[in-house]
Amino acid sequence: METLIYKTPSAYSYPLLVKNILFNPYAYNPDQEIVYKDIVRINYRQLRDRIARLASALIELGVKPGDVVAVMDWDSHRYLECYFAIPMIGAVIHMVNIRLSAEQMIYTIAQAEDKVIMVNSDFLPILEQIKGRITTVEHYVLLSNPNEIQKTSFEFSGIYEDMLAQAEPLTEFPDFDENTRATTFFSTGTTGLPKGVYFSHRQIVLHTLSMLAALTIPAKKSRLHMEDVYMPITPMYHVHAWGIPFIATMLGIKQVFPGKYLPDVLLKLIDREKVTYSHCVPTIVNMLLTDPTSKNYDLSNWKVIIGGSALPRVIAIEALKRGVDIYCGYGMSETCPVITIQHLSTEEQELPHDDRAALLVRAGRPVGLVDLKVMTADGEAPWDDKTTGEVVIRAPWYTQGYLKDKSNSEKLWEGGWMHTQDVACRDSTGSLRITDRIKDVIKIGGEWISSLEIEDILCLYPSIAEVAIIGHPHTSWGEVPFALVVLKAGETTKEKDIMKHVKKYIDLGLLSREAILMKIKFIQALDKTSVGKINKVELRKKYLPG
Amino acid sequence: METLIYKTPSAYSYPLLVKNILFNPYAYNPDQEIVYKDIVRINYRQLRDRIARLASALIELGVKPGDVVAVMDWDSHRYLECYFAIPMIGAVIHMVNIRLSAEQMIYTIAQAEDKVIMVNSDFLPILEQIKGRITTVEHYVLLSNPNEIQKTSFEFSGIYEDMLAQAEPLTEFPDFDENTRATTFFSTGTTGLPKGVYFSHRQIVLHTLSMLAALTIPAKKSRLHMEDVYMPITPMYHVHAWGIPFIATMLGIKQVFPGKYLPDVLLKLIDREKVTYSHCVPTIVNMLLTDPTSKNYDLSNWKVIIGGSALPRVIAIEALKRGVDIYCGYGMSETCPVITIQHLSTEEQELPHDDRAALLVRAGRPVGLVDLKVMTADGEAPWDDKTTGEVVIRAPWYTQGYLKDKSNSEKLWEGGWMHTQDVACRDSTGSLRITDRIKDVIKIGGEWISSLEIEDILCLYPSIAEVAIIGHPHTSWGEVPFALVVLKAGETTKEKDIMKHVKKYIDLGLLSREAILMKIKFIQALDKTSVGKINKVELRKKYLPG
Repeated sequence: METLIYKTPSAYSYPLLVKNILFNPYAYNPDQEIVYKDIVRINYRQLRDRIARLASALIELGVKPGDVVAVMDWDSHRYLECYFAIPMIGAVIHMVNIRLSAEQMIYTIAQAEDKVIMVNSDFLPILEQIKGRITTVEHYVLLSNPNEIQKTSFEFSGIYEDMLAQAEPLTEFPDFDENTRATTFFSTGTTGLPKGVYFSHRQIVLHTLSMLAALTIPAKKSRLHMEDVYMPITPMYHVHAWGIPFIATMLGIKQVFPGKYLPDVLLKLIDREKVTYSHCVPTIVNMLLTDPTSKNYDLSNWKVIIGGSALPRVIAIEALKRGVDIYCGYGMSETCPVITIQHLSTEEQELPHDDRAALLVRAGRPVGLVDLKVMTADGEAPWDDKTTGEVVIRAPWYTQGYLKDKSNSEKLWEGGWMHTQDVACRDSTGSLRITDRIKDVIKIGGEWISSLEIEDILCLYPSIAEVAIIGHPHTSWGEVPFALVVLKAGETTKEKDIMKHVKKYIDLGLLSREAILMKIKFIQALDKTSVGKINKVELRKKYLPG
Repeated sequence: METLIYKTPSAYSYPLLVKNILFNPYAYNPDQEIVYKDIVRINYRQLRDRIARLASALIELGVKPGDVVAVMDWDSHRYLECYFAIPMIGAVIHMVNIRLSAEQMIYTIAQAEDKVIMVNSDFLPILEQIKGRITTVEHYVLLSNPNEIQKTSFEFSGIYEDMLAQAEPLTEFPDFDENTRATTFFSTGTTGLPKGVYFSHRQIVLHTLSMLAALTIPAKKSRLHMEDVYMPITPMYHVHAWGIPFIATMLGIKQVFPGKYLPDVLLKLIDREKVTYSHCVPTIVNMLLTDPTSKNYDLSNWKVIIGGSALPRVIAIEALKRGVDIYCGYGMSETCPVITIQHLSTEEQELPHDDRAALLVRAGRPVGLVDLKVMTADGEAPWDDKTTGEVVIRAPWYTQGYLKDKSNSEKLWEGGWMHTQDVACRDSTGSLRITDRIKDVIKIGGEWISSLEIEDILCLYPSIAEVAIIGHPHTSWGEVPFALVVLKAGETTKEKDIMKHVKKYIDLGLLSREAILMKIKFIQALDKTSVGKINKVELRKKYLPG
């Protein structure tokens, strides 16, 4: 029998709580700034005071431990305050995906059992629309300054800045079980209803520590450090903005919150506030690189970690040419989100752009404590960068199920491993290369072909702006690749020229021979999900025969 | 009532266990080397295999979960294997302080209830001496190669390398409660019997994560990273070698174990193995800087973190002159050990050596999750770098008591805060400056004077090699400072010249006026504890009136 450690009665056993990220950071620089667009500048001293006031105001409003408080806002210092104050009083923050349809929003509010909704006035129209069908909410709080109030049918229990001004700052935050639920939000998969995931205080703290270490360990490039200036460009409602607001607060570094994402605003903020560290999806980085004003800005002090979907190598190369320190990570809503991060060695960082980009776009190695396997039908795949299988994972910070959905919870964790449904292979260093989603794999004859690989190669074709590959039913082959191609504005291209391009890669041995069976269709735009991922479910509905 | 997160039955809830440091590292470089002097080179693939064999061999020997396995060795790859294999089977590793007296060793072996002792042949003489009085031990294992066996009266149950060679590697390490005891060792205080401290798997993992982040976050200098080469120079029996072997293994970096600490061997290893990162006490770094062979070596790629006792500024300056990237941390046996680490900003790193050294020798800021207060009689001291008080702390990795010593355990944790008995002040960034041990403070009239401050100033006097200040009883003042001075070889100095030097600092306002009352005595050597700290208890016995 193992011996548990003996705790003397007076010893403090220290539960892992979100408050410790705020109160016991690596560096507390009380004068360090937190900036919201060009509207608000506060410092960490004020941040702590405002969080203590918000906590007190929420308790005053009737929020009790275990209650769910929803937030609907663009990225702001107020959102950061909610990240801390709500869990720190034992309540749960529901980060509402503001891109959801009205029906999905009603569903998620009911599922989460929101008691309070704190809402930016920009989202009042959608709330007005569904108001009569919200049953759980007792209080609405307006996330605006007193002078910004708009005409609305809502009776607000309070206005954020008023409430803070009137509140007596809470002097002591309670201790409680570290397995207490701290956050919840809904995974925006491309199939079915949104699924709720949830994370405990312990999970948030462990994710913060392990990811912080993962982001800071590289020898030279692609590393976060104590003198960086952070600006999120993955929304704060989406998987804790990858958990980095917690990390930035724990480092005590300057934070810049850009509100709604507008390319010119983002570029101006990077420039004016000397932003050095961000994270975003490939679409956003592409938008920032190609915005008409982009060339006016020096991006050579900007580091950006990419996730959410595969980074096309062409975008990586464009970024490198601009001096952007770009690299990738891999995660999901279910995983808090970190699974892997790609770090290059000093030697690899010195490779020419093309070769460097090929390495940079990989998903990377599991961060500390993440137990990851690529499973084929015959067991764990060898690290040969070829054999693919499903990625299954374990870490102390992965959701322990879906909210009120026992059947999908069990499916997610079948056999004690979280099933990502992503298909990947690993190289000799253990670095992961995602080749597909299980459901997006094209099955030609008995062979699997990765839709991502074909997409990546088509993206290299000069006149192609965007492309999605789905499987097209075929009588003799079962399935063949079907390319839905969006051309760049003003371009025209023939199918046969694209196929010539594809054949070149087949001849080089970089693409399997079956790709020659590909069909091509030119379309105006690709359908996207609410977080900007290509929506293959929708594309299949639209473009495949009945 | 807070809501605990719901765990679906199949979900893996992931206890924090030492095995995860080994099996789920940040980078697994299977061919990366682990070096033991000029004797052994293995790689991480072999390390894992040898740990799995050792685990299996220990189980074969009869070691059960909860059993205590003691290790007596110099720093070696074998010690690293023991760091993992013993806790990973649910047993407890007792790191024996090989500098203890025979009586203390008997006491600690009995207190820890060692069942197995794994011993390097160098320590057989001391074991032979106390053999008849060891009652708990059932097996002795010799930590030597088969051909190195010496004449001894012990009957060994096995020889380490034989046992590994014959064992079938353990294929699966069990899961168990993360609060299971993993390690134990004895604090070598200067008073009374050694006190046993102990750490759980959870504590080791959390310490590893938080300290790893703390060591990697600086912007430029003084940082650990993925391409460093690590060599401990604080013994592995002493507070887990500051926990850094766990960190190095989790980073997958090259590790160099130097055996017994001999200056010329250490310098040669730094040179030959390209060591870039170490930790040690001030005495050791001084030894390496002043060794006759030292000037033959380039130390400009060497980073070293100093702890254990205050780093004299003169040594810091000498190190900077040699290009050594030197900085400080603060911890104790009771704290696993990390409490604070001093990081300078890029700007501060560019200061001239003198000013930089003054900042570098500070104990630094609490690392992430450490809750630290400096408590005066009137509550928490202001961050003015002047007001001193006792340092009290909390973190998830501090010992929850002393082994089988309820009274001292309660004293240690009085009021729910760990009492360090160290006196310190904090500057405006929260960085700690230790001014004394509570029991070493000199009380002149009603005033406290720091013995460390006077020692630091006396160290600047050219002919002084070492100095210790203790309090000397005085009829009218209660106590006055008493300087026990060791001069450099061949030097002679008059008391009045030293007092002139002291007066200069009093006139500059850098030392309180009462220091003028100091008495001086020239002695041949200072008494030290087993880990090289000045033993003021012994000095008081020897040099104070009855």
